[in-house]
Amino acid sequence: MDRIVLGHGSGGKLMHELIREHFGPAFGIAGFGDSAILDMNPQKLAFTTDSYVVSPLFFPGGNIGELAVYGTVNDLAVSGATPLFLTAGFIIEEGFPVEHLTAIVTSMSKAAEKANIRIVAGDTKVVNKGKGDGIFINTSGIGILTGGMESSASKIRAGDTILVSGQIGNHGVAVMSERNGITFDPPVVSDTAPLNSLIESMGKVTREVRFMRDPTRGGLATTLKEAAMESGKCLKIREKTIPVAPQVKGACDLLGLDPLYVANEGIVMAVVEPSVAKAVLAVMRQHAYGVNAHIIGTVEESPGGMVLLETLAGGTRIIEMLQGEQLPRIC
Amino acid sequence: MDRIVLGHGSGGKLMHELIREHFGPAFGIAGFGDSAILDMNPQKLAFTTDSYVVSPLFFPGGNIGELAVYGTVNDLAVSGATPLFLTAGFIIEEGFPVEHLTAIVTSMSKAAEKANIRIVAGDTKVVNKGKGDGIFINTSGIGILTGGMESSASKIRAGDTILVSGQIGNHGVAVMSERNGITFDPPVVSDTAPLNSLIESMGKVTREVRFMRDPTRGGLATTLKEAAMESGKCLKIREKTIPVAPQVKGACDLLGLDPLYVANEGIVMAVVEPSVAKAVLAVMRQHAYGVNAHIIGTVEESPGGMVLLETLAGGTRIIEMLQGEQLPRIC
Repeated sequence: MDRIVLGHGSGGKLMHELIREHFGPAFGIAGFGDSAILDMNPQKLAFTTDSYVVSPLFFPGGNIGELAVYGTVNDLAVSGATPLFLTAGFIIEEGFPVEHLTAIVTSMSKAAEKANIRIVAGDTKVVNKGKGDGIFINTSGIGILTGGMESSASKIRAGDTILVSGQIGNHGVAVMSERNGITFDPPVVSDTAPLNSLIESMGKVTREVRFMRDPTRGGLATTLKEAAMESGKCLKIREKTIPVAPQVKGACDLLGLDPLYVANEGIVMAVVEPSVAKAVLAVMRQHAYGVNAHIIGTVEESPGGMVLLETLAGGTRIIEMLQGEQLPRIC
Repeated sequence: MDRIVLGHGSGGKLMHELIREHFGPAFGIAGFGDSAILDMNPQKLAFTTDSYVVSPLFFPGGNIGELAVYGTVNDLAVSGATPLFLTAGFIIEEGFPVEHLTAIVTSMSKAAEKANIRIVAGDTKVVNKGKGDGIFINTSGIGILTGGMESSASKIRAGDTILVSGQIGNHGVAVMSERNGITFDPPVVSDTAPLNSLIESMGKVTREVRFMRDPTRGGLATTLKEAAMESGKCLKIREKTIPVAPQVKGACDLLGLDPLYVANEGIVMAVVEPSVAKAVLAVMRQHAYGVNAHIIGTVEESPGGMVLLETLAGGTRIIEMLQGEQLPRIC
């Protein structure tokens, strides 16, 4: 491999290889968590970064601005942190309409308010026409870890229950439909949303949330596989319990996509202690961003590192990470 | 103004307008400091972000990777913070040679070691060929404020002494020469360097360092003007005391540039209490990154908000911020 391909940005197998072979050794980063956890005695901080390059910039249900705020808020929240502060770095292509910039920045401001965080520092670079794509946004975030909600795949135990907070695939299909001029009735809109208050409400029911992650690039399948590999356990899920909107299912059938691999921007996958699963599910369903939450499976001891899907037809399918690139520039 | 122009990324007047009119109101950011200072009782943190889009990616004396590490380290250090942790976000153009990525990442790793900080989290996005320019890197950083070195323009008083840590204009001329295939003998190399240990040594002499900033985009002139405007004082500098390498002076004469407006990447401008100025200068000169440090001027009460340059010929020139764009894509 001597040239970067789109798949290196997919969130799937190629990206994991890039991180493992290039960034990991150079920077001494071992894990693939959503945030770094920093011990700033007496406090523990979570610190994360994400660049947003979604194309098109505006799509049904959102735009790059709110995506950039919510995406980073969610990376902190699924790490078990309370998101507090964000920075915003803009790389703008020469000739970009200021009207669009204003719309994006206004969305970010509203998103920050909705997520209850503050954007505290920023940076602007302008690149020559043809050397960018309208606007790219990086957001980095700090959160504080308060009281034992630290999420880690190493906490996952056999017998644990697996949940998702809502229907999967909406974001990817919304972006893809805008890109290709396809419309649905009712329309498919991105699920982009801040997950911190949903996760906070889960934390009020129990501290026995072992692991959380937001299945963005690479979809739910890739996140499940990451959890299986990092924990060494087997994650077994049932297809019939995984919530997918009918239009998303239809769009995926039509385009040869699998909703399990389509990106989400307002979904959390959680692994919890089985005795608290029903209570966690109940509190999720009471929250605006968790009304379609479902228990989708259980953790087993073996075969370790694997994700097994019980299909609608009653068979078993082995779920791997996203290979190559399915829908590029999705977030 | 309805379209973004290159000058909006110059660090000068247009960028200040963009921040004041667009980002400031939306995000509730008042100041233009290099880092946000966050009160995380009992600790104060500095939090900053910067995207690097320098073209070409490799230039005499450095590359985009070490620039991305040192630039953000310096933004924290000039705020009076001890830099601790960095994140790195990569936006890579499809087809980018992995060999170049490896060289850049290796530089970042070495730079992190040299600056005594840790890169703790990262993100990779890949954009389609023709939608980027090789690689853009965002770094965000956290530092801790320890004991009264907090740098602020509001601390500047009439009578204070102004210093710079070394020769100005080297970075901008090095990048420009690489871009245009011009060579100098001896070569002009970028001054890219981590300033935290230099600033730490200044802090050991005195806590009366009122204000520090690294004059990157927009050059020393723009930084002085920012300090004048933010403090409401007059910054008076003497041309004959401002260190400029002969080749840089020559290149600037040839190209119609003013070294005062050319970007630096390893220079700090400091305003200190006059009684400690000589001691601060001495300690700077003992440091590898401060051997060419000079006292370049003094602060006066009026005319407030202005920067006045006493020229070699004995006249006085009013120094404004960089207008428009001098050398785009310099960092």
